[in-house]
Amino acid sequence: MSTQEFKQAPHKLLVIPGPIEVADDVLLANAHPAMSHVSPEFIPVFGDCIRMLREVLFAPNSQPVLTAGSGTLGWDHVAANVVQPGEDVLVLNSGYFGDSFADCFETYGAKVDQIKAPIGSKPSLSEVEEALNKKKYKVVTFTHVDTSTGVLSDAKGLGELVKRVSPESILVLDGVCSVGSEEIRMEEWGIDIVLTATQKGLGCPPGLMVLAASKKAIAAFEKRTVPPNSYFASWSRWLPVMKAYEAGTGAYFATPPTNLIYALHASLTTITKGSPSIEDRFKQHVAASDRVKDFIEGLGLKQLVADGKKDGAHGMTAVRYPQGLKATDLLPKLVAKNIVVAAGLHKQVKDEYFRIGHMGVTVINDKERGDIDHLLTSIKESLAEAGYKP
Amino acid sequence: MSTQEFKQAPHKLLVIPGPIEVADDVLLANAHPAMSHVSPEFIPVFGDCIRMLREVLFAPNSQPVLTAGSGTLGWDHVAANVVQPGEDVLVLNSGYFGDSFADCFETYGAKVDQIKAPIGSKPSLSEVEEALNKKKYKVVTFTHVDTSTGVLSDAKGLGELVKRVSPESILVLDGVCSVGSEEIRMEEWGIDIVLTATQKGLGCPPGLMVLAASKKAIAAFEKRTVPPNSYFASWSRWLPVMKAYEAGTGAYFATPPTNLIYALHASLTTITKGSPSIEDRFKQHVAASDRVKDFIEGLGLKQLVADGKKDGAHGMTAVRYPQGLKATDLLPKLVAKNIVVAAGLHKQVKDEYFRIGHMGVTVINDKERGDIDHLLTSIKESLAEAGYKP
Repeated sequence: MSTQEFKQAPHKLLVIPGPIEVADDVLLANAHPAMSHVSPEFIPVFGDCIRMLREVLFAPNSQPVLTAGSGTLGWDHVAANVVQPGEDVLVLNSGYFGDSFADCFETYGAKVDQIKAPIGSKPSLSEVEEALNKKKYKVVTFTHVDTSTGVLSDAKGLGELVKRVSPESILVLDGVCSVGSEEIRMEEWGIDIVLTATQKGLGCPPGLMVLAASKKAIAAFEKRTVPPNSYFASWSRWLPVMKAYEAGTGAYFATPPTNLIYALHASLTTITKGSPSIEDRFKQHVAASDRVKDFIEGLGLKQLVADGKKDGAHGMTAVRYPQGLKATDLLPKLVAKNIVVAAGLHKQVKDEYFRIGHMGVTVINDKERGDIDHLLTSIKESLAEAGYKP
Repeated sequence: MSTQEFKQAPHKLLVIPGPIEVADDVLLANAHPAMSHVSPEFIPVFGDCIRMLREVLFAPNSQPVLTAGSGTLGWDHVAANVVQPGEDVLVLNSGYFGDSFADCFETYGAKVDQIKAPIGSKPSLSEVEEALNKKKYKVVTFTHVDTSTGVLSDAKGLGELVKRVSPESILVLDGVCSVGSEEIRMEEWGIDIVLTATQKGLGCPPGLMVLAASKKAIAAFEKRTVPPNSYFASWSRWLPVMKAYEAGTGAYFATPPTNLIYALHASLTTITKGSPSIEDRFKQHVAASDRVKDFIEGLGLKQLVADGKKDGAHGMTAVRYPQGLKATDLLPKLVAKNIVVAAGLHKQVKDEYFRIGHMGVTVINDKERGDIDHLLTSIKESLAEAGYKP
């Protein structure tokens, strides 16, 4: 079946901060006939995905790792390969996902310190500098976009800070809700590990853990004195497999999710070789984000991130319900208009806000799709139906 | 797009011991439009998969666990949840996958004893009984079908033996190459954990770890005195999520691979509610296996499993190359006939044999597809082209 012939079924517009809407060609790739994971047809497809990921992350010298899983599994990869039990880790906590990453580190025996920011904000560079001056950390992590609040961390600033104050530390960017929708110049900015998943800015169905490790991160792994304390997430197992696929030979540790690799290949081809360019793709996400945030403010609604256009993500927006309204007043009205947004996630305030995703085809192909118009008009109408007056 | 309209692209017939050929309706389900993993439409689909897995395994009282991953990840689930560091495990080793499962246990701190069978055979029940009488094992594992050799273990016999000799031990069936193609009466036979993946007898693309745990296995997990030593594979995280999906509420730990869940739902619906019945499905796999094995023997070829019809799997056959022929003499000739079989995998003999998969639609829909005829005729012709005379 050709791309021209395949059209996905009619469905509600999915504008949550992931999974996001998936293009027809990517879905058709996900319906690829069964293929051997070590066949000469499949191996270069996997190899291309590795090469294209380097382009998306501006990381020509880094090592991607792709396995069945999710963003969560990326935490296990960091905690079980880069840190040894008893070593110190600093988690910059800007919401739900900082808490969980810290739990993951503790599972594998790391000693975790956290700098916890108030809801909707992030640790300041000066707080981080102070912490780095007090203790040597093997690893420093931050959530680039905290999906629970929509706060955007200053990846470039953190990269410069760590390089200056604690150059031995491995800086880890949790990019689950940022890769593909936010600019990340991994090597130029001094980021050592980027981890993500496929169902957000990469525009695919969920089911793949995606990670890239700098030479410094790989060197830290190679200096381990004890083996990785995970089996399925072990770099001792996976790095040779990734190198073999890239070299065109293939290798086996665990069966890769072949269809998702075809889907990722289709999506990465659009991102790296299609129009707009990667740089313009990020700019279009900024423009769409500004448009959503301006509209929300124009309605008199507040964001969870106080100054959303300055400190907020460009692929999502977290919006507080107006006084007197709650989730059940608004979300079902949006569903009735075929719009699916997400409820709150941060446990302390989850009933006070909702979340909108604006990533991937919804942003890039907005002219022909009209998703953002549909979304904003529907929010306005649903608020009015719920009795809200701006 | 409806099932009637969707036809997968023409491709070579994939008859390796997984991934296997996937039916059109399952591939179309894998191209489902993006859905929220906590939406009211998706939650019951996940719940149905849990319920249908119980039917496939004859395990009405057991707890399925489904996450993004592969069969390999199922080993981490067992090693990190059921065993505590320092506890004793017995691995019944019938090939490549026994070696690897043992490595996995050691990663998580278990003390592993193995009974290693010669290539193409399995530990005998009397050897196992002797080992169980010598030491108390927290866990006993066996590979139901070793995909590297095609040997079939006696699941029922092992279940009876463990119940009689070591009733406290948790008996684990690695069913990666057996679930869906071999009869497994999990509860009746006394199997405590079955782990598998989706790309073999379950007839889906790869990318899901599938597991079911008996009440006894769950009780062993609940009696742990230290937390699970994996994060992504932790039952503390996943069991509440599985219960929530089954109850129709949904919950979040890591994003499930939504499209693969739709694909699994399509395939499990065929297996549990379609024609033939599950019992007849197993019988048809036996009949197809006998047909393949008789044909191979009729050509004068030997199997890796000496008495393949008695001791071999029903979803695959491992065949020795005839004297004087090697992989490059045969496999490219099959590829030229649009047939993909698998090379050898067991490291000691991998250049001496090839592997054929006969599972799922290739067996069940053989009348309309003609896969087995095409396969057997092509093997015969390719051997002749390579100069082999029976």
